[in-house]
Amino acid sequence: MALTITAFAQSPDRGRGFARDMRVRWTLAELGLDYNVRLLSFAQLRTPEYLCDHPFGQIPTLDHDGLVLFESGAIVLHLAQSYPGLLPDAPDQRAMAQAWMFAALNTIEPVVNERGMALILERDSPWFSERQAMLDDRVRARLQQLSARLGQNDWLTPDFSAGDLLMVTVLRRLTGSDLLAAHDNLTAYVTRGEARPAFQSAFAAQRAVFEQTTAAS
Amino acid sequence: MALTITAFAQSPDRGRGFARDMRVRWTLAELGLDYNVRLLSFAQLRTPEYLCDHPFGQIPTLDHDGLVLFESGAIVLHLAQSYPGLLPDAPDQRAMAQAWMFAALNTIEPVVNERGMALILERDSPWFSERQAMLDDRVRARLQQLSARLGQNDWLTPDFSAGDLLMVTVLRRLTGSDLLAAHDNLTAYVTRGEARPAFQSAFAAQRAVFEQTTAAS
Repeated sequence: MALTITAFAQSPDRGRGFARDMRVRWTLAELGLDYNVRLLSFAQLRTPEYLCDHPFGQIPTLDHDGLVLFESGAIVLHLAQSYPGLLPDAPDQRAMAQAWMFAALNTIEPVVNERGMALILERDSPWFSERQAMLDDRVRARLQQLSARLGQNDWLTPDFSAGDLLMVTVLRRLTGSDLLAAHDNLTAYVTRGEARPAFQSAFAAQRAVFEQTTAAS
Repeated sequence: MALTITAFAQSPDRGRGFARDMRVRWTLAELGLDYNVRLLSFAQLRTPEYLCDHPFGQIPTLDHDGLVLFESGAIVLHLAQSYPGLLPDAPDQRAMAQAWMFAALNTIEPVVNERGMALILERDSPWFSERQAMLDDRVRARLQQLSARLGQNDWLTPDFSAGDLLMVTVLRRLTGSDLLAAHDNLTAYVTRGEARPAFQSAFAAQRAVFEQTTAAS
């Protein structure tokens, strides 16, 4: 069995584990799977060869014995379906874990990403501060609902699942903001995810890429 | 077997099938499944009882013999896993169909939605026109890539799948814009989806809710 993922040779997150290879690395580590990494420059993402593997020219892809998949959510789902540990066996519980995977990527991530992108791309726009308040409110509303649902539970499902894994990777992008800090239970939830040995080893693996790149330049 | 979905009693799309119950209705129709519909007012979406079913207070939910699921993508996936017809049996092809489900909801829908929301919420903002050009460019870039991948194929996967179903529901929101019209193959793809008998019956079912509401008011 051979597993190879793609990742940025020079990640714009500077080793903080915010790029989407992190969620796939974490998944692989939770499942106890070894993998190879193919590092790509930004120019390589736009080559016809890579666009054949990934129609949107993004990282990561997963090559699993010749099957080449794209979309980090689909890669996590495929791995969790192929190897035990990240999805419950009981069909109803499995469906609920899948619901949290989609909630992370289709309800929480869009508002978190829009806010993050505006911070980068629109900071010099005349509308920045007024619009940022609106984007913050959208994130705030979703976090309020998520916090209410999580309550004092450790995870969104009875056991840690692929849903929690994706949700933690999305919430991590708010680390250091007062939006996340407003909810003690969500802050503890992210910390709990980051404390898992598989997160730690995945984080170290992506961090090593950044450090090698920095040392080489 | 009992299936009940929730939908807006008064959908803001005025019967055009843009609300997210449409993708679940279409899925149910493709799978040949009968279902009940519970129509909810906007006030009912915010009740503690409904937030117990749907932590983000949105439609639709699916009650499947007592399992209550939220997130339209997760509902479509669960139904496609439970009944044959919308996911290939071969594991590799199934994984690729899932990749297109996530591509629809995590890569295409966010940029389409942001553009649509700005059209509604920011039309009177001083920054509207400048920002709209940026949002259009983001959509344009993704459609270009999607069009290149689809080429002259009927569907994104060899046979129509849950990935195509979700992608068509996302692209439909661009109907009438020059963004979609710029790509003959994507326009034909949406038309091909809308021509399916299951789409037609699902569309009629959601349209009937709008027409009854209008007649009653």
